[in-house]
Amino acid sequence: MNYAEITREDISFLEAVCGKDRVCCGSRINEDFSHDELSGISRYPEVLVRVTETGEVAEIMSYANRRRIPVTPRGQGTGLVGGSVAIYGGIMLDLTPMNRILELDQENLTLTVEPGVLLMEISKFVEARELFYPPDPGEKSATIGGNINTNAGGMRAVKYGVTRDYVRGLEIVLADGEIMQLGGKVVKNSSGYSLKDLIVGSEGTLAVVTRAVLRLLPLPRKTVSLLIPYPDLTRAIETVPLIIKSKSIPTAVEFMEREVILAAEDFLGKAFPDSSAAAYLLLTFDGNSREEIEQAYEKVAHICLGHGALDVFISDTPERNEAIWTARGAFLEAIKASTTAMDECDVVVPRKCVADFIKDIKRLQDEFGVRIMNFGHAGDGNLHIYILKDALEEKVWVQKLEAVFNKMYAHADSMGGLVSGEHGIGYAKKPFLEKSMGHSGMELLKRIKLAFDPNNILNPGKVCQ
Amino acid sequence: MNYAEITREDISFLEAVCGKDRVCCGSRINEDFSHDELSGISRYPEVLVRVTETGEVAEIMSYANRRRIPVTPRGQGTGLVGGSVAIYGGIMLDLTPMNRILELDQENLTLTVEPGVLLMEISKFVEARELFYPPDPGEKSATIGGNINTNAGGMRAVKYGVTRDYVRGLEIVLADGEIMQLGGKVVKNSSGYSLKDLIVGSEGTLAVVTRAVLRLLPLPRKTVSLLIPYPDLTRAIETVPLIIKSKSIPTAVEFMEREVILAAEDFLGKAFPDSSAAAYLLLTFDGNSREEIEQAYEKVAHICLGHGALDVFISDTPERNEAIWTARGAFLEAIKASTTAMDECDVVVPRKCVADFIKDIKRLQDEFGVRIMNFGHAGDGNLHIYILKDALEEKVWVQKLEAVFNKMYAHADSMGGLVSGEHGIGYAKKPFLEKSMGHSGMELLKRIKLAFDPNNILNPGKVCQ
Repeated sequence: MNYAEITREDISFLEAVCGKDRVCCGSRINEDFSHDELSGISRYPEVLVRVTETGEVAEIMSYANRRRIPVTPRGQGTGLVGGSVAIYGGIMLDLTPMNRILELDQENLTLTVEPGVLLMEISKFVEARELFYPPDPGEKSATIGGNINTNAGGMRAVKYGVTRDYVRGLEIVLADGEIMQLGGKVVKNSSGYSLKDLIVGSEGTLAVVTRAVLRLLPLPRKTVSLLIPYPDLTRAIETVPLIIKSKSIPTAVEFMEREVILAAEDFLGKAFPDSSAAAYLLLTFDGNSREEIEQAYEKVAHICLGHGALDVFISDTPERNEAIWTARGAFLEAIKASTTAMDECDVVVPRKCVADFIKDIKRLQDEFGVRIMNFGHAGDGNLHIYILKDALEEKVWVQKLEAVFNKMYAHADSMGGLVSGEHGIGYAKKPFLEKSMGHSGMELLKRIKLAFDPNNILNPGKVCQ
Repeated sequence: MNYAEITREDISFLEAVCGKDRVCCGSRINEDFSHDELSGISRYPEVLVRVTETGEVAEIMSYANRRRIPVTPRGQGTGLVGGSVAIYGGIMLDLTPMNRILELDQENLTLTVEPGVLLMEISKFVEARELFYPPDPGEKSATIGGNINTNAGGMRAVKYGVTRDYVRGLEIVLADGEIMQLGGKVVKNSSGYSLKDLIVGSEGTLAVVTRAVLRLLPLPRKTVSLLIPYPDLTRAIETVPLIIKSKSIPTAVEFMEREVILAAEDFLGKAFPDSSAAAYLLLTFDGNSREEIEQAYEKVAHICLGHGALDVFISDTPERNEAIWTARGAFLEAIKASTTAMDECDVVVPRKCVADFIKDIKRLQDEFGVRIMNFGHAGDGNLHIYILKDALEEKVWVQKLEAVFNKMYAHADSMGGLVSGEHGIGYAKKPFLEKSMGHSGMELLKRIKLAFDPNNILNPGKVCQ
């Protein structure tokens, strides 16, 4: 790809649009902006611009489009697949200063926000008003813009679905600087192709999201968590399809092994309620009546105890729930802290295939002599698998990583699984998306990309380009 | 547009693919296939082909693409905007023979179906197994393929969302005959642009849907309907935002006036439980515990009685619910039977704007001297408005229709509303979509259309072409 290099005139233009204090070049750019949380790729943008309003984004896009300068939109940079790394240099648009909650509309049950608002701020704001934004990814310090761009999922997808299901409307800026409104506060929409749904999950390659109208629900009045120890992981996971089949749908069904819990205890310096068993299921039930929740969890507890569970610990106070879920939220960081380097696989498989998939991971660990840790969303089939470098030499590790990834993605594919459940494709997972979709599928994605961005300036090198 | 006319060789090809008894030409084509339920446009396809499997669709598309023959996919033809009319002639693909329920997967809670399965067959099949497919459009004899292609909504969208929310995976045939799988049985997906969501609601212009994996829920154990009479429509509708704000979310909130109820009584030859009041709200609550449902509907009944409701009739047996909802399901046919001809508007506005919008319809009725009847989904802001010809001369009616439509769509637009909540754009609503999206928005849709179908052979003349 042939892009213009940033010149002194370009910087002057950006400074004229945003003011000098929000434009930053060369060695003044903080190292944080050269990478994300995990992907291993690194490149500094030529210029970092902190934008504060849609009009600025539009002016910058229009200019960059004429000049053929690549533009990488970025939130908190908490991604794991290189989606927010400026791999062709150019302009990085830091959207975190666009962090206002603009409107709570209680009669339409919508919240209008700028893209830089953090997920934890949204939940705090709405829950104080007895409202609920259900998507619940582990990384609470991510921006909502990043969540929309990866179609983030999280723990509560079993019952409530994913980010896409809670985005009613978007304001976007196209590659040529045009501002467009998609959807809105309306509940239904059959008015032409769903551009809103095409933008959700497009990882900043089709447009820059500058505003979002989110759908809210009433906050469920009661939440109960069950922590269920098992003598081994297989028995734990094999219970999950039986739970789904029982028609008592939990809000969340997570699985975890003792080694991950021990890592989290080390990392947080706090004990988990129980770490004596080899494996655990962690379930949540929510609703508005105690009767309804009790009926559901008693049925599920009975199923688990009938299929090898050692016990059922019930946690029904906010404090106890918090203790368990804080540990769950720290798994990624805890695993990261336990090794020298790592990479991840975020496949999603039909939920009844999870047990088989995990057995295969154990085989790969032995076959390749590489430590693999995993945990994840047993209830929705989305696994988080970490391949750890430990003391391996770089070259050896890279080879093992590639071999393990190839086998894992092929296995997922053979089960009707897909490359990513919630982290996205970004830069790092492109080869696996190509294998999964085939050549003509990727060509179709590229044609859609060009329909939005004919000069390929928006987050180039990601997803399909 | 320059398309090839069907030749004797084309017919021979189609007969070789499908057998002579499934290919039908010229005057042997039933009149039903020349129009849909309402749109007023009429054109016969040159040849009608009843397809029974994906491979046939693929062979026909590949051939038609090479020969530049337009192809119009069609289900039951129950649409209202001309989406399934072959306005450029060519081949009509009748997908109704592809009507098998292929697999119920209870461990993944999915149902795999062919596109010709009727909505009423799906609900009957799953409800017999205590499962639930929530989308509930009034037209139960529509095919699921048609529902997917219009992103049909229906009554239960307030609580459960629309068709899009229940499509997990699709098998499609592209314009060039390639067969592609999108999504699958997985609950989460962030693997490239969401082609699945682009196809949902694309009205047969991007691909032919040949199979769908639907998401099911457990069937709620208890359903209660409330029929709430009001002295006038305004007070009825103004209660709805208060209900939403109260955080007791009903499954459905419909509104109706006495004149529509009387038309339905006439049409069905059956009395409605009450028709003494000028206007009604019809609400449903569902769930698994009586306590939960009672809490919700008692709160809502209290709100209604505090805001002008004359009474609250509770219907909690399947028989009584059936009587009310059968009448509701017959409104369209009843209004149609009460006049000589009619056309419809299916706008969706933010739900707190419904009362204002309806007041404006009354003004338009008086201003233009044309009878307008309406009912609709007060809980999701999607209105069904029928402009009736009665004894008006054709030319006068057409003029009035255009003037009324222009005012209505402009008014919806000014409220942040959109052209169609669930019926789609098809042929009839294209001018209004263009006004709503603007020129560059329509150009973007056209570029997406060409990314899928460069020769514009798939359902041409619809949505954006």
